[in-house]
Amino acid sequence: MTEDIVVVPGDGIGQEVVPAAVEVLEALDGVDFEFTEYDAGDETLAETGEALPEETYEAAASADATLFGAAGESAADVILPLREAVDSFANVRPARAYPGVDALRPETDLVFVRENTEGVYSGIESEIADGVTTLTRVVTEDASRRIAEFGFDYAEQNGYEDVTIAHKANVMRVTDGAFLDACEAVGDERGADYDDALMDALAMHLLLRPEEYGVVIAPNLAGDVLSDLAAGLVGGLGLLPSANVGSERGLFEPVHGSAPDIAGQGIANPCATVLSAAMMLDHLGYGEAAADVRDAVEGVLAEGPHTPDLGGDASTEDVTAAIVERL
Amino acid sequence: MTEDIVVVPGDGIGQEVVPAAVEVLEALDGVDFEFTEYDAGDETLAETGEALPEETYEAAASADATLFGAAGESAADVILPLREAVDSFANVRPARAYPGVDALRPETDLVFVRENTEGVYSGIESEIADGVTTLTRVVTEDASRRIAEFGFDYAEQNGYEDVTIAHKANVMRVTDGAFLDACEAVGDERGADYDDALMDALAMHLLLRPEEYGVVIAPNLAGDVLSDLAAGLVGGLGLLPSANVGSERGLFEPVHGSAPDIAGQGIANPCATVLSAAMMLDHLGYGEAAADVRDAVEGVLAEGPHTPDLGGDASTEDVTAAIVERL
Ligand SMILES: CC(C)[C@H](C(=O)O)[C@@H](O)C(=O)O
Ligand SMILES: CC(C)[C@H](C(=O)O)[C@@H](O)C(=O)O
Repeated sequence: MTEDIVVVPGDGIGQEVVPAAVEVLEALDGVDFEFTEYDAGDETLAETGEALPEETYEAAASADATLFGAAGESAADVILPLREAVDSFANVRPARAYPGVDALRPETDLVFVRENTEGVYSGIESEIADGVTTLTRVVTEDASRRIAEFGFDYAEQNGYEDVTIAHKANVMRVTDGAFLDACEAVGDERGADYDDALMDALAMHLLLRPEEYGVVIAPNLAGDVLSDLAAGLVGGLGLLPSANVGSERGLFEPVHGSAPDIAGQGIANPCATVLSAAMMLDHLGYGEAAADVRDAVEGVLAEGPHTPDLGGDASTEDVTAAIVERL
Repeated sequence: MTEDIVVVPGDGIGQEVVPAAVEVLEALDGVDFEFTEYDAGDETLAETGEALPEETYEAAASADATLFGAAGESAADVILPLREAVDSFANVRPARAYPGVDALRPETDLVFVRENTEGVYSGIESEIADGVTTLTRVVTEDASRRIAEFGFDYAEQNGYEDVTIAHKANVMRVTDGAFLDACEAVGDERGADYDDALMDALAMHLLLRPEEYGVVIAPNLAGDVLSDLAAGLVGGLGLLPSANVGSERGLFEPVHGSAPDIAGQGIANPCATVLSAAMMLDHLGYGEAAADVRDAVEGVLAEGPHTPDLGGDASTEDVTAAIVERL
């Protein structure tokens, strides 16, 4: 069976790391992909007046899966509609420390399961009077239950014993109260073990004792912030993949952005995108190929070559070739 | 002149660290305080049905300054009204690493200037339909300008060269857009140097390169989360003081909570509260006494004794006595 994959490199280093991931996918045996490239991002905006052309949106909405790189200033105009296009309600962001990579906290092995459709991302904002602006944060019981089900399933299927529900229900009593209640109800129905944590306290505890945490189920913005924080624990954003999933489709992207400071130099770390491609393989049902890709990346992280963000002087191409060689 | 100080120890270790800070203040020459103690917190709630009795609120609203410890489950019902009682719009939270204390990032010297009146703390929430809840996040130009003025002043007066405006204006375009615009306008009017940062990216950068940051001006929740994160960088919440200021009055409190796990054992670290008392001294115009207290705390942090949270085995009383001895 041929898998129809939409590829959206986007801006900056997206143009370097997405081709690297495609190279890795093409080197796999027994998986047949058809890649079609689409435009999005700042350059597309400058050329066409739209950061996310309708045809890119439609392609993502009908492909088996989409591999996205990064976008610059227009990131929110690209990534938020794309997450919606693939009908994803869960943003899965593993953050692990790897042997061979200098990490602030080598014991880190976390997976953020971020609610991907509501919270402050509702987009309902206005200037209601001169100098007075409001945003309506939306939290529904259905979406909260849905992400909790996903998070508890993920923990079980992937062998994580600790499940933590992040929230700020002491201040956002009604909305995060609803989120927490729904997540607790799901946990209790399953007889699962779990804990909850205020997102502020959790930010500190993840720094001081990351080994005590596993899967963190979080509202949209909390998941956004805490997963970036976790990138700091494991050596930077160059290592963090993500999967926007929930429906048959899916959108797979590195957590990092377009990194204009190093774009065009051929030194971007492709690992986050290659690991995102591995999450895509899992999603499409190629578990073995996914494991092979992950092993290859781990081998390269352990023994090199490394790009400059990890203290090495290898190029994107060197690292990609080394990954391919290990497959 | 006698300064009329309201003292609210609250719950848990608040009952231990607030008396310690009072002991330090009483040991100072040339400062005449009259302390009056008031109740608040979980125990007060259990006894009186109210976490924050009207008389505590009124006392804080009319005192020269209030020194608060911590509250348990009822923290939000105590601390949020108290912040309002003293008419504070700025929550100042320094986070520094100290010689002698094991810190994840010994180069950390940050001050969070957190907007203290709006954002998601507006309290406007409801269940608008079955299973559908909303919160109205409020951001005004006036409050944003006011905190920016305060933050730029603070940076100038305290010798910080880096000012960073934290926000999530790529998603909360109208509300955080207004916050960012107002802060930038203030910075530009002053010809000040500043930068802005997305709060998610900032969470990571503070971990990886804290030395590049100084004063961080932040909306309410961003300041809440980022300052707790910074506690993780410098060795824990036992060291972080805070000042809720903006009017003549002020409310001074450690960033930590009531720590029920160690309450009643006499081993709580009093430093955060003693440093909060030093911020109070500064606020009341006793700059020299404030510097003396800070020096004494730094001396004890450098040479011991240390409470268990810092790896020592000293008691709250040992540490307090050592601080007093150095005055
Ligand atoms: C670009 C931005 C809209 C996005 C988000 O806030 O989700 C980014 O920070 C991310 O985490 O993917
Ligand atoms: C207790 C809670 C309401 C409070 C806050 O969110 O401000 C606390 O986290 C703090 O930072 O002082």
